[in-house]
Amino acid sequence: MIYAVIMAGGSGTRFWPRSRSNRPKQLLTISGEKTMIRATIDRVLPLIPYDRVMVVAGASHVGEIAKQVPCLTGDMIVAEPCARNTAPCIALAAYKLRKIDPDAVMVVLPADHLIAKEQEFLQNLMKGADAAVQGDYLLTFGIFPSRPETAYGYIKLGPRELRIDSTGVFTVAGFVEKPDAETAEKYVTSGDYVWNSGMFVWKVSQIIHALETHLPGPARAMEEIVPSLNTPEEADAVRHAYETVDSVSIDYGVMEKAQNVLCIPVDVGWNDIGSWVALEEVWGRDDRGNASTGDVLNLETSNCIVSSPHKVAALIGVEDLIVVDTPDALLICRKDRAQDVKTLQEALKARGYGHLL
Amino acid sequence: MIYAVIMAGGSGTRFWPRSRSNRPKQLLTISGEKTMIRATIDRVLPLIPYDRVMVVAGASHVGEIAKQVPCLTGDMIVAEPCARNTAPCIALAAYKLRKIDPDAVMVVLPADHLIAKEQEFLQNLMKGADAAVQGDYLLTFGIFPSRPETAYGYIKLGPRELRIDSTGVFTVAGFVEKPDAETAEKYVTSGDYVWNSGMFVWKVSQIIHALETHLPGPARAMEEIVPSLNTPEEADAVRHAYETVDSVSIDYGVMEKAQNVLCIPVDVGWNDIGSWVALEEVWGRDDRGNASTGDVLNLETSNCIVSSPHKVAALIGVEDLIVVDTPDALLICRKDRAQDVKTLQEALKARGYGHLL
Repeated sequence: MIYAVIMAGGSGTRFWPRSRSNRPKQLLTISGEKTMIRATIDRVLPLIPYDRVMVVAGASHVGEIAKQVPCLTGDMIVAEPCARNTAPCIALAAYKLRKIDPDAVMVVLPADHLIAKEQEFLQNLMKGADAAVQGDYLLTFGIFPSRPETAYGYIKLGPRELRIDSTGVFTVAGFVEKPDAETAEKYVTSGDYVWNSGMFVWKVSQIIHALETHLPGPARAMEEIVPSLNTPEEADAVRHAYETVDSVSIDYGVMEKAQNVLCIPVDVGWNDIGSWVALEEVWGRDDRGNASTGDVLNLETSNCIVSSPHKVAALIGVEDLIVVDTPDALLICRKDRAQDVKTLQEALKARGYGHLL
Repeated sequence: MIYAVIMAGGSGTRFWPRSRSNRPKQLLTISGEKTMIRATIDRVLPLIPYDRVMVVAGASHVGEIAKQVPCLTGDMIVAEPCARNTAPCIALAAYKLRKIDPDAVMVVLPADHLIAKEQEFLQNLMKGADAAVQGDYLLTFGIFPSRPETAYGYIKLGPRELRIDSTGVFTVAGFVEKPDAETAEKYVTSGDYVWNSGMFVWKVSQIIHALETHLPGPARAMEEIVPSLNTPEEADAVRHAYETVDSVSIDYGVMEKAQNVLCIPVDVGWNDIGSWVALEEVWGRDDRGNASTGDVLNLETSNCIVSSPHKVAALIGVEDLIVVDTPDALLICRKDRAQDVKTLQEALKARGYGHLL
């Protein structure tokens, strides 16, 4: 049986002031009518019903997630006592799923990505699940790059994996960290590189084997608490296990080291909404390049991103700005500084505005 | 006896969104604790008590003015049925005052200027009143220019008026309209020019004489309604008179033509708060040139003017912006476009936001 594991641990600091510590990006409506986590789950429902959807999230968000997605089974919302990056999260989910179904196939999806082409996405998910089952592979989805983005890791594709009875499944020649602009440009023009999307599919038995091999510490910590998983003791056991594991990403900890990794490059209208700038594409631009939601009046203004859902925002003669208005905080940020919104957190705390985080 | 006539007819469109049609700049607190009109009146009280202060304002603002300055005599708040610039306003006030006191000396002050040096201001007011009475002069106050401002009219000073028994009283060689930047530069370096402040003092009999000579139409219109002034018929009569007079400024209509004009150049910390940019001086700048009120957090931001009284405003990496937040409207404007805030009025109306004006 195929299961979805939705990783909802993001703190969403880059979307301040819309996102707050108690309401990170995945719990917000960024586009359309649904919150991002709700859209992520609804998207896979044609393939994976509610009772096989597991969400792993920060403990303080579990209540809100249960409210937003009431059809989730209580046992399937797993609280992380603290953030430890993706490897411990995936390990916990894998051991928990194995206890439910030792033959489980596990799709791993971040809760805060947009995917515009849902049919293409589901087709590739099925293709990936087939490939993972056929040959005990760890399968990752790559995104055809549309620009020389420096904020993403890249996957260098190897030759097609011929043992897989499907087209478009590639071996992996290597994982590379976020490149500089020049390198990113080379990657994109070469055609050999795709963005690392952070979406995976594998058999539970196979990822556990890989964790035991490449990250024995976290694997052992989760193995030890298996008797408590899916019981009333789970929360205490998880808290105990998380105290002993270090933060490490599944990419660094497992994918870059494992030999049985495959990649399916996809074109599914993917957007990880990494900062306010990503919303240009999502909201669409006017003929002067402005993207906005709410009541926005632009006079001789260009290439601005404005979110003003509660009041009229009038812009005169400005360009390349991000403007975000909320009832208790306002952000004005140069567009090329969008990544620095997260650094505001410290400054706000230092000035006594911690209640706004 | 000396009377003050406070001209409070401004619509304050350049201070949107803080100022609105029902709450123009003179009715707002821009600096300190008092509204501008209240501060203007309180400033002259050492010289001119409440019962000799007259306010001329738009009909829709009379109620709010009575609330803000409850000590004003009811008869002394005069409603203009429509805006007709300064000459009809001054004519109306002059005829009304003459009926109360034919020997009245009349100080004319805009309701929306800041004056930091109150003692110097009052001393010059007394000097001006003395000079006006000594020789039937029309006396205007000039401001020593601190920069080559192109938004003001200038007065070219002539030689000292030797018939006046006081230093620092000059004849006027001419009035000049708002100059271009190069001309303004010349004016400032020459030392012969001062800014036209729009503050005057004269005997009521003398300004009426000048109005009859240079603006006979408006003079006659006001003369005709004298029987109704200071009676219950005043409002109807004023409405009737205003229908017949054209908009004309006292500078253009009288001062530029009259021969008996004198000027006292003063250094009284004057600021006409002509746009948001003026508040840099009023609020003071931090070491990166930012001026703000409210809760403002600037990160690598310079030369911005931010008013955010109701919420935290965080600025990242921006410069030369005006940011004004109010509960129902937000303005982001490039600083050198501050004068264009008034052009927003039409755009807002066209978009159905007329209720925000």
